[in-house]
Amino acid sequence: MNLNDFLIPTQDICRRPGPFDRVVLTSRVRLARNLQELPFPGRANKQERQQLLQTVKPVIETMPVMKEGFSEEIAKLTDLDRQILVERHLISRELAKKTQGAAMVLSVDETFCVMINEEDHLRMQAILPGLQIKEAWKAIDKLDTMVETKLPIAFSSQFGYLTACPTNVGTGIRVSAMLHLPGLVIAEHMQQTITAVNKLGLAVRGLYGEGTEALGNVFQISNQMTLGESELEIIERLNKVVLQVIENEENARAKLLETKPEMLFNQIGRAYGILTNSHIISSKEAKNLLSLLRLGLDLGYFPDVDPAVVDELFIVTEPAHIQYEAKNKDGEALKKTPEERDIRRASLLRESLEKMPGPVMDASGSPKD
Amino acid sequence: MNLNDFLIPTQDICRRPGPFDRVVLTSRVRLARNLQELPFPGRANKQERQQLLQTVKPVIETMPVMKEGFSEEIAKLTDLDRQILVERHLISRELAKKTQGAAMVLSVDETFCVMINEEDHLRMQAILPGLQIKEAWKAIDKLDTMVETKLPIAFSSQFGYLTACPTNVGTGIRVSAMLHLPGLVIAEHMQQTITAVNKLGLAVRGLYGEGTEALGNVFQISNQMTLGESELEIIERLNKVVLQVIENEENARAKLLETKPEMLFNQIGRAYGILTNSHIISSKEAKNLLSLLRLGLDLGYFPDVDPAVVDELFIVTEPAHIQYEAKNKDGEALKKTPEERDIRRASLLRESLEKMPGPVMDASGSPKD
Repeated sequence: MNLNDFLIPTQDICRRPGPFDRVVLTSRVRLARNLQELPFPGRANKQERQQLLQTVKPVIETMPVMKEGFSEEIAKLTDLDRQILVERHLISRELAKKTQGAAMVLSVDETFCVMINEEDHLRMQAILPGLQIKEAWKAIDKLDTMVETKLPIAFSSQFGYLTACPTNVGTGIRVSAMLHLPGLVIAEHMQQTITAVNKLGLAVRGLYGEGTEALGNVFQISNQMTLGESELEIIERLNKVVLQVIENEENARAKLLETKPEMLFNQIGRAYGILTNSHIISSKEAKNLLSLLRLGLDLGYFPDVDPAVVDELFIVTEPAHIQYEAKNKDGEALKKTPEERDIRRASLLRESLEKMPGPVMDASGSPKD
Repeated sequence: MNLNDFLIPTQDICRRPGPFDRVVLTSRVRLARNLQELPFPGRANKQERQQLLQTVKPVIETMPVMKEGFSEEIAKLTDLDRQILVERHLISRELAKKTQGAAMVLSVDETFCVMINEEDHLRMQAILPGLQIKEAWKAIDKLDTMVETKLPIAFSSQFGYLTACPTNVGTGIRVSAMLHLPGLVIAEHMQQTITAVNKLGLAVRGLYGEGTEALGNVFQISNQMTLGESELEIIERLNKVVLQVIENEENARAKLLETKPEMLFNQIGRAYGILTNSHIISSKEAKNLLSLLRLGLDLGYFPDVDPAVVDELFIVTEPAHIQYEAKNKDGEALKKTPEERDIRRASLLRESLEKMPGPVMDASGSPKD
């Protein structure tokens, strides 16, 4: 099956509601698991990786949640498909680079995705919209329990689950929430927030995880430790911290509206003006401006606009999505240069926002009727 | 009479046509003259300056071209009025600062303005729209001839007209044209143009003359030398150079359209987007963006827009004009802080351009029908 026929249309993905979805984009729980007696993927040779794949893939494919899912070896996907999956946060950038013995199995609702032969033999994740860390944990825990009845998972009574990297040993769990924090960034409270969150043993990262920039004011908060705490303790702590960050973000927005409304209008208005009128725009600039547009929507300055329209633009203006759109619409050649993509991205943004009226605001800081 | 009741409304000023007015805003010829036996203004004491004023002012006022003109001592004008006159390029920044014995006489059509006790006893200028250097020269020469029959002008058979600063001695003439050169700036040919013009003995200066920035891509070209050449030779040379610069500017625009249309659209589109959506904007940024809007108009991207609307915004977004508008419209207090003016300026721009549709252009570089 063609990947793009399988994937949920971006507008539908962006319309799935979730708790606290003014601030929280998605919640994710990922478990790292390895099979006993077999070398970790980084040490395994080609044959060993292939053997593991043959053992594991059919098991995952037959899990009830994976019914009618999408299962494929990475080597059999095109470069563009791999990039599309990365841009949708379904697989990691690391997996996308692995061409030997690596595979992915994705559920039809895109809640579950299992990566095979990434850093570990198995990386199983559940992703849900909004703040649903506990729900994501329950979902992946259930899958994990079923998988463990079928496969001999490496577990030590002393260390817990064994993983390729010692930072994952123990529970093998990575819990994360993706947050949109334009208020804290504009109010210049983000550094302070990061420091506070770090002190609680949690990491704050950019849009694409470890070592990436916080494009579009999107930050990932995740646990650092996997050892010495139960899964539920880790989840409880992360949930509590995320709720606090949400409150801080909402307070920052309210304070900005009260004390610096013009500064806020100016940033939101200019973002709208540039997005609707540029003819060359980078992915980075587009994300940062779309973040301001989304903030304007949250504050009520675009009364009749569906937030999903703006959220969808975050995804479809990514490089691979731009290439895909150009190919589908005009049959254009796949390999676009970054300069060509910047022109295409600007034209897509102008067309998509053409019918979206400008922000309406009065000097009091309230949205105009 | 109130200055603002006297001044020609900005929209009318901007509707006066002139030759080559796609590029040339105005042409100006200024003559420096001094009376015999009296100290130059910089050396004169208060009484001497006052005495000169009493002698000269009535003579200028009774010149035929000054019929129903505006004649006033600088000390009797408000700070705001003086700034308004500077922003309209009718008096110099130096005259605006002189409170003792300084005066101005302005003709009803604003073509003629005589400054009394600026650096010289008399500085008489004629300003015309577009490229009309020769016409401006004829106009001011006629006035000068009449003035010389009424006042004992200092003239040496060896040096010519005597002036306070030796750089003006001889003809006492300063001929200048104000040019809008966005094409040369965007194509990065401006430095080269300045060097070439300098080599021909002419100066290139910013929007407000000597030592000022070229805000809004507006440059003044003027003669440096006043000695050893006749007025007509100076004028001929300047006219020839300006015609060459106009040609270079038009070529630069055509070349940009041909080779980098997206870059050009991108700059013009973004300028429009920001001007119509900002809530805080400095005078400098506004001018630079309005320059791009005017370029877009010249290139046909705003088919139904009157260029006078954009040209007027160049003037009315200047600081004193913003204060004056706020005072007139809302009775707001005169002293606005720069921050308050930046907010007011943004709101004026949004309102003025509200009904102006965005640029229409297709990928070929041609304006869309």
